[in-house]
Amino acid sequence: MESFKAHLDKFISINDEEFASVMSFFEVLTVKKKQNLMLEDEVCQFKYFVIQGCLRKFFINEKGIEQTTEFAIENWWISDTFAFEKQIKSTFNIQAVENSQILAIDYDAQEKLLEKHPLMEKYFRMVYQTAYAAAEKRIRYLYEMTKEEYYIHFSTLYPWFIQRIPQYLIASFLGFTPEYLSEIRAKLRS
Amino acid sequence: MESFKAHLDKFISINDEEFASVMSFFEVLTVKKKQNLMLEDEVCQFKYFVIQGCLRKFFINEKGIEQTTEFAIENWWISDTFAFEKQIKSTFNIQAVENSQILAIDYDAQEKLLEKHPLMEKYFRMVYQTAYAAAEKRIRYLYEMTKEEYYIHFSTLYPWFIQRIPQYLIASFLGFTPEYLSEIRAKLRS
Repeated sequence: MESFKAHLDKFISINDEEFASVMSFFEVLTVKKKQNLMLEDEVCQFKYFVIQGCLRKFFINEKGIEQTTEFAIENWWISDTFAFEKQIKSTFNIQAVENSQILAIDYDAQEKLLEKHPLMEKYFRMVYQTAYAAAEKRIRYLYEMTKEEYYIHFSTLYPWFIQRIPQYLIASFLGFTPEYLSEIRAKLRS
Repeated sequence: MESFKAHLDKFISINDEEFASVMSFFEVLTVKKKQNLMLEDEVCQFKYFVIQGCLRKFFINEKGIEQTTEFAIENWWISDTFAFEKQIKSTFNIQAVENSQILAIDYDAQEKLLEKHPLMEKYFRMVYQTAYAAAEKRIRYLYEMTKEEYYIHFSTLYPWFIQRIPQYLIASFLGFTPEYLSEIRAKLRS
């Protein structure tokens, strides 16, 4: 779990003893590609942190198509924040995109962790602040850009996105059909 | 400032002495309707908390039209989170929608506040968590709903929105022309 320690060190000062105690609140999980971690209509029990691999969050739209709204790679959190904090049923699904190693924490463990290690309040404040800042930008893009522009923007900013994520999931994220995405890619290459 | 104390009490336990110290990090401002608080291409110096009134955040789109992305009424924060935390130029504007009383805090004051009152880490963790949860939902709506559906959803969930916000700003938020918004409202009434 050295990578999680290195990640925490970017935000807070935490010694080895404290880190061991912090880790005791988490479960370490190994999940296979396409394994489901959360299903809609189930209470959102966990928040997930990606040590290695990639997860995605999606919902089923009214046409029955999977609409991906978020990916999480190394050092990123993923959950249905609203459903997790209220401990209610989620309207999203979370699934592994790659074989992954992840940390999971449930609501009670999170509350106990924050009580025992108030320093983790600072860590999560900064995590949510960064996530919210990214969401503010993303909402602007959804207003401002066509989906084609958003694809170009996204793939320029996050080359890992194009390299790691299967094409049908990129299409699911952008709300394209896979065929339309192929057309855009062909156009960009030419 | 009793309303800010009451707001903080929902998240953390803070006594009168601590609250007086917390308040010393904020400036209290009175702003007039349509007064600008932040302009794009200026460094984002402040985060604002609305005591009374309403602020909005917008950008100028490529057609030269103001696109509102966010409103803040009582007990809500508004800023360009990314630009504030990095202390860089913003690409948004913040303006008063109504005569308002607000709190402002700059980056240095925020850092000092958090150092002196670590309890405020918990408060801001919960503020950002709630804001991020709302943004996750909103991103889903932007995928899932037509603008007409979004208008109906928004006005059902937040009646204050329709009651307080001038119609041309509701149009600016939804990305409608004011004429198209009038048409939708007429259709919904009939």
